Amino acid sequence: MLIDDLNWRYATKKMDPAQPVPEGKVAAILDALRLAPTSSGLQPFEVFVVTDADTRAKLTAAAYGQSQLTDGSHVLVFAAWDNYTEARVDMVRDETGAARGGVTDQVKEYYQGLKDRLLGQTPAEDFEHAARQVYIALGVALVAAAEQKVDATPMEGFDPAQVDAVLGLADKGLKSVVVMPLGYRASEGDWLAGQVKVRRDPSQLFTRID
Amino acid sequence: MLIDDLNWRYATKKMDPAQPVPEGKVAAILDALRLAPTSSGLQPFEVFVVTDADTRAKLTAAAYGQSQLTDGSHVLVFAAWDNYTEARVDMVRDETGAARGGVTDQVKEYYQGLKDRLLGQTPAEDFEHAARQVYIALGVALVAAAEQKVDATPMEGFDPAQVDAVLGLADKGLKSVVVMPLGYRASEGDWLAGQVKVRRDPSQLFTRID
Repeated sequence: MLIDDLNWRYATKKMDPAQPVPEGKVAAILDALRLAPTSSGLQPFEVFVVTDADTRAKLTAAAYGQSQLTDGSHVLVFAAWDNYTEARVDMVRDETGAARGGVTDQVKEYYQGLKDRLLGQTPAEDFEHAARQVYIALGVALVAAAEQKVDATPMEGFDPAQVDAVLGLADKGLKSVVVMPLGYRASEGDWLAGQVKVRRDPSQLFTRID
Repeated sequence: MLIDDLNWRYATKKMDPAQPVPEGKVAAILDALRLAPTSSGLQPFEVFVVTDADTRAKLTAAAYGQSQLTDGSHVLVFAAWDNYTEARVDMVRDETGAARGGVTDQVKEYYQGLKDRLLGQTPAEDFEHAARQVYIALGVALVAAAEQKVDATPMEGFDPAQVDAVLGLADKGLKSVVVMPLGYRASEGDWLAGQVKVRRDPSQLFTRID
């Protein structure tokens, strides 16, 4: 059950370096992440899956030393497209068309409408829109990790320019948005472990209009 | 299994007005949404759950006539905080402290650090950060709906100013971010139903650094 998985997970502060996450579980998390819905099916991002010790050490340095990045076994770096271009939208159009029986006039029309909307935006607007889509995938990946009983710590606390440099993202037209190490919670050393999960009262979070 | 739920769902284009979603299922979706993690646990948003026919008609008008908003039975409107204020962060601090045994010096220090970071941002930066958190909750809500075999259509295609006006959001310091009707897919009239789900090839979406 989703609700049990959400109650089980927490933003693990201390991971056990002796327990790597099996590749099969990482694959299951990536499979789910890939199915996350995005605006017009653009999937305007890429995800870097880092196990290399040297690269993870550099990521840790870019993230104020957060130890999960080296104590965990895998680090996911979510990087959004830095802008929307005709080539990128056409790529999505052609792949979608190919999967659905051809780039028909109807398909062309749909993506022309999309280009008419997106290509007039500034790169900053493009990136922000793409970054929001990343957060849907992040939400799905968090649920997927919890279902696999793998700990995950979503992180915004890092220097994006430094992470971009470590992974060479600028050359790929990408910018880092959020980072998520995967691993297993350590048996001690985690100040957050065992703390009650706190969420706002439903009466404050939800308003019914019936 | 999450993967089955993700494969089952799609952005339903035509819902059946004769099949309302049972309140128990809506409650399960909201319970999951409430457990979605957010940056520093801020949950910087509220969600409006609309069944009222008149309000839904106005939302439809603000969303270019998308019929799911009236054919479905419930509409979730996700609205983010329009800025971060000392009062809002203190509210989170006090609730977290109360749930975890008191607003200790350690708790105060944590939230003072958070305020030092957040309160120097512009309202536009605040809102964008809050909007990203909404998308985590959206991702979790989408998964929750699929688990309940409830159809859901995440929508960005609406006039935010108009939605804000319909729900009186400005007075609450909120701005609409994304809208999600809940309902059941109609047996006909949905151009997207039955179409193959298309996602980018893993080789394009993921890069391993081992």
